[in-house]
Amino acid sequence: MKIEDIYTVLNNISPFELQEKWDNSGLIVGNFNDKVKEIYISLDLDLKMIKKIKPNSLIITHHPLIFSPLKKINNDSYSTKILKKLIKKDISLISMHTNIDKSHLNMYVGREILGFDFKKIDDFIITANINMSLKKLQKIVKEKLNIKILKTVKSHKYINTIALTTGSGMSLLPYIKADCFLTGDIKYHDAMEAIAREITLLDIGHYESEIHFSTLLNRLLEKYLKNNDKKAIIIASQNPFNYK
Amino acid sequence: MKIEDIYTVLNNISPFELQEKWDNSGLIVGNFNDKVKEIYISLDLDLKMIKKIKPNSLIITHHPLIFSPLKKINNDSYSTKILKKLIKKDISLISMHTNIDKSHLNMYVGREILGFDFKKIDDFIITANINMSLKKLQKIVKEKLNIKILKTVKSHKYINTIALTTGSGMSLLPYIKADCFLTGDIKYHDAMEAIAREITLLDIGHYESEIHFSTLLNRLLEKYLKNNDKKAIIIASQNPFNYK
Amino acid sequence: MKIEDIYTVLNNISPFELQEKWDNSGLIVGNFNDKVKEIYISLDLDLKMIKKIKPNSLIITHHPLIFSPLKKINNDSYSTKILKKLIKKDISLISMHTNIDKSHLNMYVGREILGFDFKKIDDFIITANINMSLKKLQKIVKEKLNIKILKTVKSHKYINTIALTTGSGMSLLPYIKADCFLTGDIKYHDAMEAIAREITLLDIGHYESEIHFSTLLNRLLEKYLKNNDKKAIIIASQNPFNYK
Amino acid sequence: MKIEDIYTVLNNISPFELQEKWDNSGLIVGNFNDKVKEIYISLDLDLKMIKKIKPNSLIITHHPLIFSPLKKINNDSYSTKILKKLIKKDISLISMHTNIDKSHLNMYVGREILGFDFKKIDDFIITANINMSLKKLQKIVKEKLNIKILKTVKSHKYINTIALTTGSGMSLLPYIKADCFLTGDIKYHDAMEAIAREITLLDIGHYESEIHFSTLLNRLLEKYLKNNDKKAIIIASQNPFNYK
Amino acid sequence: MKIEDIYTVLNNISPFELQEKWDNSGLIVGNFNDKVKEIYISLDLDLKMIKKIKPNSLIITHHPLIFSPLKKINNDSYSTKILKKLIKKDISLISMHTNIDKSHLNMYVGREILGFDFKKIDDFIITANINMSLKKLQKIVKEKLNIKILKTVKSHKYINTIALTTGSGMSLLPYIKADCFLTGDIKYHDAMEAIAREITLLDIGHYESEIHFSTLLNRLLEKYLKNNDKKAIIIASQNPFNYK
Amino acid sequence: MKIEDIYTVLNNISPFELQEKWDNSGLIVGNFNDKVKEIYISLDLDLKMIKKIKPNSLIITHHPLIFSPLKKINNDSYSTKILKKLIKKDISLISMHTNIDKSHLNMYVGREILGFDFKKIDDFIITANINMSLKKLQKIVKEKLNIKILKTVKSHKYINTIALTTGSGMSLLPYIKADCFLTGDIKYHDAMEAIAREITLLDIGHYESEIHFSTLLNRLLEKYLKNNDKKAIIIASQNPFNYK
Repeated sequence: MKIEDIYTVLNNISPFELQEKWDNSGLIVGNFNDKVKEIYISLDLDLKMIKKIKPNSLIITHHPLIFSPLKKINNDSYSTKILKKLIKKDISLISMHTNIDKSHLNMYVGREILGFDFKKIDDFIITANINMSLKKLQKIVKEKLNIKILKTVKSHKYINTIALTTGSGMSLLPYIKADCFLTGDIKYHDAMEAIAREITLLDIGHYESEIHFSTLLNRLLEKYLKNNDKKAIIIASQNPFNYK
Repeated sequence: MKIEDIYTVLNNISPFELQEKWDNSGLIVGNFNDKVKEIYISLDLDLKMIKKIKPNSLIITHHPLIFSPLKKINNDSYSTKILKKLIKKDISLISMHTNIDKSHLNMYVGREILGFDFKKIDDFIITANINMSLKKLQKIVKEKLNIKILKTVKSHKYINTIALTTGSGMSLLPYIKADCFLTGDIKYHDAMEAIAREITLLDIGHYESEIHFSTLLNRLLEKYLKNNDKKAIIIASQNPFNYK
Repeated sequence: MKIEDIYTVLNNISPFELQEKWDNSGLIVGNFNDKVKEIYISLDLDLKMIKKIKPNSLIITHHPLIFSPLKKINNDSYSTKILKKLIKKDISLISMHTNIDKSHLNMYVGREILGFDFKKIDDFIITANINMSLKKLQKIVKEKLNIKILKTVKSHKYINTIALTTGSGMSLLPYIKADCFLTGDIKYHDAMEAIAREITLLDIGHYESEIHFSTLLNRLLEKYLKNNDKKAIIIASQNPFNYK
Repeated sequence: MKIEDIYTVLNNISPFELQEKWDNSGLIVGNFNDKVKEIYISLDLDLKMIKKIKPNSLIITHHPLIFSPLKKINNDSYSTKILKKLIKKDISLISMHTNIDKSHLNMYVGREILGFDFKKIDDFIITANINMSLKKLQKIVKEKLNIKILKTVKSHKYINTIALTTGSGMSLLPYIKADCFLTGDIKYHDAMEAIAREITLLDIGHYESEIHFSTLLNRLLEKYLKNNDKKAIIIASQNPFNYK
Repeated sequence: MKIEDIYTVLNNISPFELQEKWDNSGLIVGNFNDKVKEIYISLDLDLKMIKKIKPNSLIITHHPLIFSPLKKINNDSYSTKILKKLIKKDISLISMHTNIDKSHLNMYVGREILGFDFKKIDDFIITANINMSLKKLQKIVKEKLNIKILKTVKSHKYINTIALTTGSGMSLLPYIKADCFLTGDIKYHDAMEAIAREITLLDIGHYESEIHFSTLLNRLLEKYLKNNDKKAIIIASQNPFNYK
Repeated sequence: MKIEDIYTVLNNISPFELQEKWDNSGLIVGNFNDKVKEIYISLDLDLKMIKKIKPNSLIITHHPLIFSPLKKINNDSYSTKILKKLIKKDISLISMHTNIDKSHLNMYVGREILGFDFKKIDDFIITANINMSLKKLQKIVKEKLNIKILKTVKSHKYINTIALTTGSGMSLLPYIKADCFLTGDIKYHDAMEAIAREITLLDIGHYESEIHFSTLLNRLLEKYLKNNDKKAIIIASQNPFNYK
């Protein structure tokens, strides 16, 4: 199986052209003509995980390894450390980031993982009517997304509508038209802004809300892989946070 | 007491010229010639708090109310909502942000609140030798900073040196030369980067690490206020987060 | 009557989307949901005028109060001084600037006030054949626009065609295809440029050429206001210049 | 006499390095090695004037002929029309603009032409105590600067201090610390701003306030020219405005 | 014959709108209304050539005389030296640069001068199948383009496909999909890049590959000139390089 | 021997801070703590050469491998192809580019290789009086720099002074104050500009003029290497050009 073939399949599933300007989705490491032995799917890469991956494989991640372009490959940053390991083991890397956020991931997490009837899609924001108490919503969110500690910014006791953006969506706050916004990486000033705008926030975790990328993509690739007598290996990057 | 006089005192304590380019510290609302009845000190402003403040007062906050310059005063943003209330009650506002971070706040939190022997100052980063287990450090940090849930990114079991930046310091990660970095608003990608760089992170909270601004400034102003037969009123903005 | 309703009517008269990039037309102070007691129309705002305006009113002006975005509300600039007064009296402000220049104002001043048969519209420039001596043109312009001292840059004795841009149009000189250009705020280097290009200039005054905004808008709103049993109050900002 | 020699003398009188970034003072047309037959001094160039100037001369003007750099020499702009005439007659051009404004011209106009005791210089702004009625000031200004129609923005009846910037100085308004500001090219919005700031304005004309450049420079060059048995010819560009 | 007429004819042949953003094709010196006695065509201008050209002529060149806009006409650069000569002799200049590269010149040189069956055009790149040894290709290129010393970067012995860009095309290397690229002005780092990409380069000379502009344009203008009883004079700028 | 040690020695020889803003000199691949088995010196890297280099070595080149920062490591560019090979063989790379041009290389080539008495250094330009015929100069240059075909732009028969910039120096033409300029990568428009400015050009080749970097650096490192019982291996990148 050549990288080019898989790239074409992925592009049919979620066109790379959909990505935002600042994004770096696509083939990040490797060549279109390279042959691939195994295919791995993961939210992210980390150093421990790469040890387990076989040489001449392809990894498909959600987050691009490289964001800021590299001028020197000599410091100890996350990108350069992992880049070196990939090159040494001839591992290729494709990332599907903002393109699949928009085309699939938000809706998948909202409907299939959380189980709410999300309908409206507006770029990165999806919205649903839920009509339940905040308490009940908190309970569902903790269970379904497997969140240990749920950080809440409370502006309402009862929630009619929720909006959802997986990952890190707080820059979208001015466009939220719902009682409650579910997203990850909520910072202090975001919370102050939400209170002034009378919006409730639930921090669903960048990791916890996007870890579902792997099962989603696996399912989307299933038919294609079967036809080629292949299976993708789902491999979990670790949640970097502990709570005490 | 005229605003100009207090401004001069504050500028002697921590020159406004020290602020970063992108900051907006200084007299944000009001006129230098206005007379001031009461002086309030707070980390931040919120709508409930303003109800309690007397007209013709001055508030001194840590965070500037306006960051992005305003072209329209008609939306429902935090800045414009509060701005209107201040103007209606003739309340003036001075903010001391990155200038006092550098000149006092980091060192105050590090030495007097946390009780460690911080010595080296490098702009926004202070460093100390502590030589203790991560467990013990976590315990001290939770107690001294009154943190309910401590988010940790664990790269070591034993910590020789710590670095500290109050507020939101993760953009400084590449410059950290310590085993463990204490700061607030730690996001998922920050955590992944720290693991690759083998740095331990403790999320000490933007709110919890900077709420001490009020007692700090009150102490710095004490002598001046006494000479003028005045007292500053410390007024607490509320922590926007709940944990469950 | 809600601001939102009037905004919609104004937007139907002259869509705010027509405005230039650098402009700030639209709802500048106030909220779409606010109710409005009185409606005032004026070319501009000044401090004396605001004293006469009732609280909870809406003012519709031609010139936007805010051009350069505001970071501090503590200096003594025109914008901030007036902004404070508006907020204190709960007065809302909508400005219709380059959108109505293009859609109505130039043509209204050219045809109805000056009485010439303007036909061609090219963005901010309208053109007419007039075929008369410069002397006669000067006489008409002074009378119709009520100009005390008419500043002229004379390149012809006889004028076949004139172009007109109300307000401050001299940056458009390279696009003028007429013997004579009527606009306001003509500066010295503009005049030198016009002489080299053999174009005659008549300075019709920024104030004198745009004061007609109020009667124009009043007429455009008449039907809507009648249906709502309302009347707009035309209120005149003062010409800041005296001549001696 | 070579251009280089005269350039050196001018540079000693008022260093070209003093000019603002956006300015284009210096040798604009001609070569440093060219020999010069006659020297002319003028505020500006115009097409009629160039007819009277002898070939192989040097003109020294206040305003630079070229501001926006030229990509095509085929349109009918002021700069390109005059540039062609200069080249055809081998006339060289040196301009002394913001350098001489700062070093001499403002002070010369303020003290020697207007006759006030200006003392403080702050870049382009000079300031004097005058203590007289606005009426009396208006009378003096009209007489001394030979102004036919004096445009006034009136904020006071009695003037203690005046500030002066020759030419077009209204962008300096926020820095004016005087009751009354004398400058040229005052536009409508400048006037509105001045009223809000309670500053009186007198429009002393861009042309009328800078025409004195020629006599000033002639005097500054006198000694050098005498030593070389030369005389500079003062040649007047025409005021482009007529008033009716 | 007026310049405007010839400009229109040229614009029909190869629309000036086709030019790249950074280009300066069009009427560079002269006015659309000027009458033209003689028409000259040349790749470029040089000082010797201008001596031979009659006053009141029009020159049509491939390369624009002015690239960087001019602020001063007093240094000894190529552009300003020649500009002065053109103005003094009332010679007008039109340049047809990237527009005619794309519409005609590449294809003319590829098919009619080199004699290969170029078919695909992709902006500035044309491609042909040739199927011959590099040696044979080198021989043909030297003969047909009259190249004395042929600089080669050799990555193949046998060439299936060639790409061609006249003038200076090395910035297009990443887009070349052929074994061998023919262009001029090949620099050292370009050559190193080509070796890594396994592309053969033949340096066909900026001058040698574009000197054919004159005969091409002459042919394209023939009919129009005949109808006006005119002939264009082809005048050769000199190759600046000697080889030893 | 650690990379850090060698880096320090190189920085003492020619401080990396001397480099131009756009340059990327320094440690480009590898880590300061890595140990180095062999040290190689070369003008440049190419794929053939890397095969011969032992793993865990350090290469010191003149030209930085990476100029444009990299976002993807999947295309077939020179930089990414070679980067992968370096990483796979654990080869580190330091480049000394514009810093050593200024501090040593120009003077070394001018005095020791060419044998002229260069004296004045002005950034990248060195100048010498030579007083000889162009013919004689051409002969010396060809011999000393081992240039097969010498490309000349001839403006003089006799040369009093020469300027020299190794590599690609034509952007410096406006600053050349000599009869003749020796540099590499001379393009057609550079040549036309030189003729207008009456400067003679000799194209001394980017490769031919900088290949001496290796012997120069070897000599500068000799003492340090001896003290560490090491020898540097000089390895020649190949001249990419053939002439026919």
